[in-house]
Amino acid sequence: MINKLVEKIKKTGAPIVVGLDPMMNFVPEHIKKAAFAEKGETLEGAAEAIWLFNKEIIDKTYDLIPAVKPQIAMYEQFGIPGLIAFQKTVDYCHEKDLVVIGDIKRGDIGSTSAAYATAHLGKVQVGNTMCEGFHEDFVTVNPYLGTDGVQPFIDVCKEEKKGLFILVKTSNPSSGEFQDRLIDGRPLYEHVGEKVAEWGEQLMGDSYSYVGAVVGATYPEMGKVLRKIMPKSFILVPGYGAQGGQGKDLVHFFNEDGLGAIVNSSRGIIAAYKNEKYANFGSINFGDASRQAVLDMIADIDGALKQAK
Amino acid sequence: MINKLVEKIKKTGAPIVVGLDPMMNFVPEHIKKAAFAEKGETLEGAAEAIWLFNKEIIDKTYDLIPAVKPQIAMYEQFGIPGLIAFQKTVDYCHEKDLVVIGDIKRGDIGSTSAAYATAHLGKVQVGNTMCEGFHEDFVTVNPYLGTDGVQPFIDVCKEEKKGLFILVKTSNPSSGEFQDRLIDGRPLYEHVGEKVAEWGEQLMGDSYSYVGAVVGATYPEMGKVLRKIMPKSFILVPGYGAQGGQGKDLVHFFNEDGLGAIVNSSRGIIAAYKNEKYANFGSINFGDASRQAVLDMIADIDGALKQAK
Repeated sequence: MINKLVEKIKKTGAPIVVGLDPMMNFVPEHIKKAAFAEKGETLEGAAEAIWLFNKEIIDKTYDLIPAVKPQIAMYEQFGIPGLIAFQKTVDYCHEKDLVVIGDIKRGDIGSTSAAYATAHLGKVQVGNTMCEGFHEDFVTVNPYLGTDGVQPFIDVCKEEKKGLFILVKTSNPSSGEFQDRLIDGRPLYEHVGEKVAEWGEQLMGDSYSYVGAVVGATYPEMGKVLRKIMPKSFILVPGYGAQGGQGKDLVHFFNEDGLGAIVNSSRGIIAAYKNEKYANFGSINFGDASRQAVLDMIADIDGALKQAK
Repeated sequence: MINKLVEKIKKTGAPIVVGLDPMMNFVPEHIKKAAFAEKGETLEGAAEAIWLFNKEIIDKTYDLIPAVKPQIAMYEQFGIPGLIAFQKTVDYCHEKDLVVIGDIKRGDIGSTSAAYATAHLGKVQVGNTMCEGFHEDFVTVNPYLGTDGVQPFIDVCKEEKKGLFILVKTSNPSSGEFQDRLIDGRPLYEHVGEKVAEWGEQLMGDSYSYVGAVVGATYPEMGKVLRKIMPKSFILVPGYGAQGGQGKDLVHFFNEDGLGAIVNSSRGIIAAYKNEKYANFGSINFGDASRQAVLDMIADIDGALKQAK
């Protein structure tokens, strides 16, 4: 799956991923109205609204991008109907041949991580039958529990040819509270980065490992160091756009081959129509606003990468 | 909810929680047969099997215990039908007046943690209507992202009078890989423990905070230190029984008031009938084996606490 991701990035020329994180206040009124008319102001109605919203954005952007990253929390908040919309979104993205990164940030003790890995990347045995639950291509994993909490994910990835992005340095303001603390003179995130590189060695694709990392766009200097610590790990970079990261901050996350990073934008793309810059599209054409925002993001990153050369 | 938990622990004399983590190989053949006959060897069949399994164990133990802890991964692995069984289990435990600790180990950047908190502890607005997704009483939270990843959970707890257990020192073998690393001469888990105590100050119940901690039974010496660092935090202690923890290891997790800790056992209780010690019950009476295992666990801990006095 890492090979497919690399190939699709090369083909689209877009090292970006659209974060499908549908907050209710991102969904235009006409979509909500239609969904609530059909299913009421219920979890089912909310789920229908976010599904219709997602579908339009996917339809308007899928040919430009290699991958999407649905944040499962935004679906989980609508209970079972929300998770059905998550699954529907994953399936629809697969129909459109997009790589799907499930942003689930799971992580637990061994047997429990194995169940999460099965849930999102693998197959589960029921009697004599193998069944599938959710089926993303990559998932994000929290490393706080150490190797035996991560290995079960790697084991399933080996079997299924799927991949991981391990949290190393997150994009949020207080990520430094623990992640930046010095251990033997170096921040915790560097130690985690070293482990990611080590874990990744057991599962290499053609040029990059199936085991990647998450490093926030909001910390470009740290990204530069981590790029060197994990040369074969793809870096998933959140925090571009709404969280403050810009194209010029991103160059250090890439390798000299122009690869090695994939930059996420969520609300900057999916709620573009709410941004003054794209207001002329109107909320009815929110999908077209998202398409334009994708094109602008590709140009921004491409420009920054070219300038850095 | 922390007050209710304390009250129920006093009433039952049982500082224990039954981990409802139904692995497929724990479920007796006659249950699987009935479930698969009705729903096939499908995710729905698996979900029906684990629900029937849970129900019997709850029916046979609810009067002895204050709380249960369903591990959501074990349900998530069966996709949407599995999560429906999770919700059914939570609801049924509430009918039996049990405190429900959702072992979900979520944690993300602020807006995403807010969505998880809403999903599991709060209410979500759909149009003009407030809806509820899952509705546990407590959840477990991963602290790797720092304060702004935890605060949204605390905010929802304030509103809903619900509580948290933050991962501090986990029970698994490689938990020390990052958690034990020294920062300013003290292990990371102590720094996290200090934060838990600080976070907990803003949300105090009568005698304990709504913000508790997870510390594994497998590390009793560390539990002793953490008990002192977080005097007002309830400690959820996994790792008893199958993972190797014993009654005598647990005394340091408790305060002098005999409270402050709640010890989890999962497979030691729910799969008791597979243990030689309880084999005489037979798989058909697996619920009775679980009841006996609960009684034995209460006696083990009670004996250890009395001996320590």
